Amino acid sequence: MIRSPHRMTTTVYLVGAGPGAPDLLTLRAARLLEAADIVFYDALVHPETVALASRAVRIPVGKRHGRPSTPQAAINRALIRAASRHRTIVRLKGGDPMIFGRAQEEIDALHAAGIRCEVVPGVTAALAAGAEIGVSLTRRAVSRSVTFVTPSVGDREARTDWASAVVAADTAAIYMGAGEAERVAAALLARGMAPATPVVMVENVSHPDRAAQWGTLAGLPRLGARWSHAPAIILIGQVLQETLDEFRRLPAAAPAPLQAGRLVPV
Amino acid sequence: MIRSPHRMTTTVYLVGAGPGAPDLLTLRAARLLEAADIVFYDALVHPETVALASRAVRIPVGKRHGRPSTPQAAINRALIRAASRHRTIVRLKGGDPMIFGRAQEEIDALHAAGIRCEVVPGVTAALAAGAEIGVSLTRRAVSRSVTFVTPSVGDREARTDWASAVVAADTAAIYMGAGEAERVAAALLARGMAPATPVVMVENVSHPDRAAQWGTLAGLPRLGARWSHAPAIILIGQVLQETLDEFRRLPAAAPAPLQAGRLVPV
Repeated sequence: MIRSPHRMTTTVYLVGAGPGAPDLLTLRAARLLEAADIVFYDALVHPETVALASRAVRIPVGKRHGRPSTPQAAINRALIRAASRHRTIVRLKGGDPMIFGRAQEEIDALHAAGIRCEVVPGVTAALAAGAEIGVSLTRRAVSRSVTFVTPSVGDREARTDWASAVVAADTAAIYMGAGEAERVAAALLARGMAPATPVVMVENVSHPDRAAQWGTLAGLPRLGARWSHAPAIILIGQVLQETLDEFRRLPAAAPAPLQAGRLVPV
Repeated sequence: MIRSPHRMTTTVYLVGAGPGAPDLLTLRAARLLEAADIVFYDALVHPETVALASRAVRIPVGKRHGRPSTPQAAINRALIRAASRHRTIVRLKGGDPMIFGRAQEEIDALHAAGIRCEVVPGVTAALAAGAEIGVSLTRRAVSRSVTFVTPSVGDREARTDWASAVVAADTAAIYMGAGEAERVAAALLARGMAPATPVVMVENVSHPDRAAQWGTLAGLPRLGARWSHAPAIILIGQVLQETLDEFRRLPAAAPAPLQAGRLVPV
């Protein structure tokens, strides 16, 4: 296959922007943004992160709850078009590109067009949520497995169902489930998960206005009812028990012992 | 509770160093290392990352396959002792501290001693492995769940067993399992996972000498037999099917179409 010269030197980088805070970007991602000719970024990426691409054309293609978004096929076409005009193209995605980022569709489209593609991993929201509340997602003698799932992508053909994956793991992080907390709780209870299983919903992970609500699986619908419509992660599992107990012992006005900004008991 | 003045300003930072490559560190981690008075680091952390802590006392406490390591209780004591003498203490761990990093033991010991502790998340190895081989761990209509497990921590009391968590998820990443590939394969086959399920073993993720071996669950013991004893991640799941097919179609001498350094078919 004969490639045109610009194709030989052009690379599209699928870059993870991390969970939200601009300083949770990797050094590699920061350097690529600084070198980029053009950047296509998701709406949820922090403006300071996008601003690192100071010499680039910056194009928002974001999907954001309740706002117009660019269809995936149009993003794929825009990346391919950009590769014929630019040398360093960055596709900047929230979190890690390979976790609920629809990266495969972009990788496949670029490969089909003969365009070189590299992926730069990032900190996914579940890891930042664990860091924020000071709870390790795995723990000796308590949790040797952690599952990341989404109940809302609308896949009917997945090999297994998301709720079974949650029940089979010691710890779970549910992405994009806050708006369906009642359905999530019902599905997990129906599969035999204990109603007293500790649950934390962390909104705006790593942002200054982050917030965590603590409770149990049985109380998850109440947590969901207080959801602010910000991006949120639901953590479920026995690893959360001690901090839930600690939180319940606190007088309401006491300063929170955890790192999260606003903590609401349920 | 009355705290001594140094305790009020002292913080121990549990910091994720990322999967290996020094530029997969976060900006926050880099700044903390530059500001650190003392750093306790795992053996697997890249020397260039440790060197960022140019003004700090640097103490290796690493656990590494086949080499002497510092017992966890001794690390906990060293962190508490350091908090009485230093202001900015960094505990630098490979990957993300909250995924198979034994972070909870250190957090609990620090809290019990009344010492402030913050966690800085990092890129965990499974995400870097997905980036390396260009395969998204989740995918519409194929995978809406991804599980990280370890079969070798020696926990007998975990709520569920690791193999069930793998079988229930669409995609799995097995940490610290390369040396037990035969046992891993047997456990998953015994739970009904299809022998033809695609498998990739990625060693030295994100390092220049990284290597990926491709095969199926039935062939996993053969992959394990070729394991170099470097840190390795085993990825399992249908999301790997297309790249496995693509790889099998290649003539042996063709350049690898993926990012990984050395690719070995099995």
